[in-house]
Amino acid sequence: MTTPLDLHGVIPPVVTPLTPDRELDVPSFQRVLTRMLDAGVDGVFVLGSTSEVAFATDAVRRRVVTEAARVVAGRVPLLAGVVDMATERVLDHARVAADLGADGVVATAPFYAVTPREQVRRHFEVLGERSPVPVVAYDIPVCVHTKLDADDLVALGRDGAIVAVKDSSGDDVGFRRLALRNRDAGEPLRLFTGHEVVVDGAYLSGAHGVVPGLGNVDPAGYVRLHRALQGGDWATARDEQDRLARLMDIVLAPRRTGGWGAGVGAFKAALVLLGVIDSHQLPLPFEGLDDADVDAVKAVLTEVGLAA
Amino acid sequence: MTTPLDLHGVIPPVVTPLTPDRELDVPSFQRVLTRMLDAGVDGVFVLGSTSEVAFATDAVRRRVVTEAARVVAGRVPLLAGVVDMATERVLDHARVAADLGADGVVATAPFYAVTPREQVRRHFEVLGERSPVPVVAYDIPVCVHTKLDADDLVALGRDGAIVAVKDSSGDDVGFRRLALRNRDAGEPLRLFTGHEVVVDGAYLSGAHGVVPGLGNVDPAGYVRLHRALQGGDWATARDEQDRLARLMDIVLAPRRTGGWGAGVGAFKAALVLLGVIDSHQLPLPFEGLDDADVDAVKAVLTEVGLAA
Amino acid sequence: MTTPLDLHGVIPPVVTPLTPDRELDVPSFQRVLTRMLDAGVDGVFVLGSTSEVAFATDAVRRRVVTEAARVVAGRVPLLAGVVDMATERVLDHARVAADLGADGVVATAPFYAVTPREQVRRHFEVLGERSPVPVVAYDIPVCVHTKLDADDLVALGRDGAIVAVKDSSGDDVGFRRLALRNRDAGEPLRLFTGHEVVVDGAYLSGAHGVVPGLGNVDPAGYVRLHRALQGGDWATARDEQDRLARLMDIVLAPRRTGGWGAGVGAFKAALVLLGVIDSHQLPLPFEGLDDADVDAVKAVLTEVGLAA
Amino acid sequence: MTTPLDLHGVIPPVVTPLTPDRELDVPSFQRVLTRMLDAGVDGVFVLGSTSEVAFATDAVRRRVVTEAARVVAGRVPLLAGVVDMATERVLDHARVAADLGADGVVATAPFYAVTPREQVRRHFEVLGERSPVPVVAYDIPVCVHTKLDADDLVALGRDGAIVAVKDSSGDDVGFRRLALRNRDAGEPLRLFTGHEVVVDGAYLSGAHGVVPGLGNVDPAGYVRLHRALQGGDWATARDEQDRLARLMDIVLAPRRTGGWGAGVGAFKAALVLLGVIDSHQLPLPFEGLDDADVDAVKAVLTEVGLAA
Repeated sequence: MTTPLDLHGVIPPVVTPLTPDRELDVPSFQRVLTRMLDAGVDGVFVLGSTSEVAFATDAVRRRVVTEAARVVAGRVPLLAGVVDMATERVLDHARVAADLGADGVVATAPFYAVTPREQVRRHFEVLGERSPVPVVAYDIPVCVHTKLDADDLVALGRDGAIVAVKDSSGDDVGFRRLALRNRDAGEPLRLFTGHEVVVDGAYLSGAHGVVPGLGNVDPAGYVRLHRALQGGDWATARDEQDRLARLMDIVLAPRRTGGWGAGVGAFKAALVLLGVIDSHQLPLPFEGLDDADVDAVKAVLTEVGLAA
Repeated sequence: MTTPLDLHGVIPPVVTPLTPDRELDVPSFQRVLTRMLDAGVDGVFVLGSTSEVAFATDAVRRRVVTEAARVVAGRVPLLAGVVDMATERVLDHARVAADLGADGVVATAPFYAVTPREQVRRHFEVLGERSPVPVVAYDIPVCVHTKLDADDLVALGRDGAIVAVKDSSGDDVGFRRLALRNRDAGEPLRLFTGHEVVVDGAYLSGAHGVVPGLGNVDPAGYVRLHRALQGGDWATARDEQDRLARLMDIVLAPRRTGGWGAGVGAFKAALVLLGVIDSHQLPLPFEGLDDADVDAVKAVLTEVGLAA
Repeated sequence: MTTPLDLHGVIPPVVTPLTPDRELDVPSFQRVLTRMLDAGVDGVFVLGSTSEVAFATDAVRRRVVTEAARVVAGRVPLLAGVVDMATERVLDHARVAADLGADGVVATAPFYAVTPREQVRRHFEVLGERSPVPVVAYDIPVCVHTKLDADDLVALGRDGAIVAVKDSSGDDVGFRRLALRNRDAGEPLRLFTGHEVVVDGAYLSGAHGVVPGLGNVDPAGYVRLHRALQGGDWATARDEQDRLARLMDIVLAPRRTGGWGAGVGAFKAALVLLGVIDSHQLPLPFEGLDDADVDAVKAVLTEVGLAA
Repeated sequence: MTTPLDLHGVIPPVVTPLTPDRELDVPSFQRVLTRMLDAGVDGVFVLGSTSEVAFATDAVRRRVVTEAARVVAGRVPLLAGVVDMATERVLDHARVAADLGADGVVATAPFYAVTPREQVRRHFEVLGERSPVPVVAYDIPVCVHTKLDADDLVALGRDGAIVAVKDSSGDDVGFRRLALRNRDAGEPLRLFTGHEVVVDGAYLSGAHGVVPGLGNVDPAGYVRLHRALQGGDWATARDEQDRLARLMDIVLAPRRTGGWGAGVGAFKAALVLLGVIDSHQLPLPFEGLDDADVDAVKAVLTEVGLAA
């Protein structure tokens, strides 16, 4: 049995496949998970931003964790997003996720209500005290409009409130600083980058792993990338990273759907094209990509050799 | 029995009083509501931003609507906030609120996931189709980081998806435009400003009412203001508005608490000072104002003659 | 001879007409100015944002002030924008403008380099000390990405560093606060709104005048609006304001040009359609509106009765 | 004689030392430049953001280029910033800089007036046509509030309008994409990162060089870093980068001065402490760091071994 304290390596945020009428598509979900595990990922993260956590009802959230726990079966750590607006609501999700088998939970800063730095830190302190499983801090200002402070994160790590950081902040300068502060403090935190196309640079800065949305499409590529980086083979890593960066262009392919729907719509369309899931449906108020956008995604897959 | 289609006038967003250990303080809540009704408000709005909807668990949300429905007892429309990240989650709240007695629900644009204009419009269309009670669109970009489009709002009103707009966008230019568009379309929408200190200007632009957080502290003042504005007595209205604008300085008084906590902390502190509620406790991760900040709030109350 | 200390009423920011090959079109410029003066404006403001100050070379800036001073000939105050990135550069412009006949200069917060509040205040203090003519503070965060602080502005007014504020901040709540603070301090500042469609509300809040870009197109309308507001005839004012707000839709008409070019392009296109200037050319890197966009502007003019 | 077409390696943006009464301190400026050249830099960049270009009058700008050209004497390329609000003003600066000896000019997107993407591209096209020396595009959204588009930059490079990009956008994901696009187009552009603490990652992505403000303080460190990166010695590079990242903490040391003044104030204070320049004075409206902030800078220098 794995323990969530040993987070490292490739931990993709798993898409949540839907049927055309927007029910959870359990067989497709199982195939996505199994394909990741077969590729050698070091953990899985359900109910992240890519997993449409913001759209999923509480009922769907419960089923997702339940099914994931069944498929993963303790082979790797199972992280569950507990994304909600403030502390008590997040804790309600954390208790449910832990009950259903999550080994750790991933929480953002509070959002909706404007929350100063001091209260953001307090939020994670309380989560650390009351969550039944370890907490990963999720730094994603594009969604929550708050950047987590590096000194606060390291202090939270030292105090045991959080065990890791998933950095999707788009701030590589801040990530370097966080990594140095973490090292000076004895590495209380495991650091993960969420940026699919600059994983090599993040490892130079001190990342221990990566949480790549694109890992839904090419989990084996990220496993290879991680192993090259761990082995200090920077030239190989850079080439693999360049290839994955080209593949990431699928998220730029959609012309008709923008915002969140373009990225996850492209991931799902690619998974349909690769035969992994049955439908690229998106949750309301989005729609799955139209045919032209699917063709654009396919063109990118073909260009990088993932489709005929 | 009122119907939610007749929204107009003063509809304060009601604070949610807590005990020092952060339980819902029902007797205090009843006193706040009763005082508003006695002052002659035209509706009440529970679970708004001021009402700490972002912080309240689903269990607390249910109790708030239940208690409000009991106190209001159909005398004025009861609106309930159904603030959540995306369409399905919002609908789950709407069904609960309607079951518990809300006459209408107040919904924002989706947040957390970046959502383009087209999908924001679709969000409200679906809410209009599926919500069991009428929907008010809540335009609050400071919280959700999306500004609602005036043309879309009027179209949604014409199609019956929404019945009113609560504008807390801080965009008076856009509000004038919305009011003109709405008039040209035959006034399908009732328009409310959420900005406590420029209600007079908003009525010149075409507002039908106001949703003032400060109406927790001085509901009678807002009722007087509304009546003067309705009667075309602009000079009286301006003076009342200037007085209320000075009172609104309580939200600038706190030095130790910032962001959301400064404003609602000040409202609650004022209500304690006025003897209406028992505690100015705030939900996690905030704390109620400290003594110095309470004194600063008191100084403003004294200056405008609301406290000795 | 007027003195810049008596700023009030309608002070339009004057467009800078160009020939098709982007030279200053002096005869057109003179016609715009003369038409404003004939309409009864209370001042003119050259080299504002609408006047394409950001695009004009120093040579063009000099010619604009020179020509304006010749046309105005002391009949009303002549204000000149001295928009530049920091204090010393602004002062260089102020000395030139004063030499060439400006009665006052209009300066923004520093921009380009991130400048904290304390240094913004110091900037205006130094301008007040060293500018040869009085300084008007120009609050335009959409351009300079800093909002001027109300308390600082009143303090600067009390100390004599600035004599007036042109508020284009889009923050009507802040404007009300500024007006109250200014009144409490004995009205050291004259307050102007730059928002064409909410002038009535701004006067309720305490504005002494308006700096309307749309005053290039309909100066007489703004003079009527100002007089109705001064006379306390709010109903007449509101109707005139509603008419001008509809006219302002010309800035939304362009489909092919966006950003700054849409607004000023529409003003210039309207002035060509009204026979006041010869060309709607815009400075590099913009182009004047294309034919379809000009037609869209014309349709709005027709709708409000300004064109056949 | 070098040609600006051969831009690569370490090209620091040179601080502009002032006397305590804010005159250009020519001897100190010469010492900064000479120390950089002795350290082996591959070019120098005067009148960048770090060089206080936003604050410098036109007279000071001329003297800076003149003095730099004299010191550099053709040994390495001399780049000059031509930062101004729009195309014609930028071209005025470019002509002066070229006359005075600059080998290339560095221009940002237009700022102050909101400028859509199409006009930003046109801006650089016109600069490319009319500037007497080659143009480097400077991507610095924190100052100009526009992000340059990767596809547009590569197209501008292919068309010969620009020869290089200095990326200070803080967007490492976008930089990777730019580098891949540039490679696919046959490398028309030389790519430079302006982010001092993630140079190693930027080179993995495809940077040809670095423009480090911190290179004022430790030019030799950046030369070592560049050489290690060029030689593929990633482990050595990472260690040097980590050391420089720690040194960069000097910009976080100031407590009393914020914004632009904190960073450049720290660079200048360090240069005084290292005996390179005479005064850490800053341009109006800033003041040089106070004693406590200088001590904080000194503590960082000591920690990384640059001061006793």
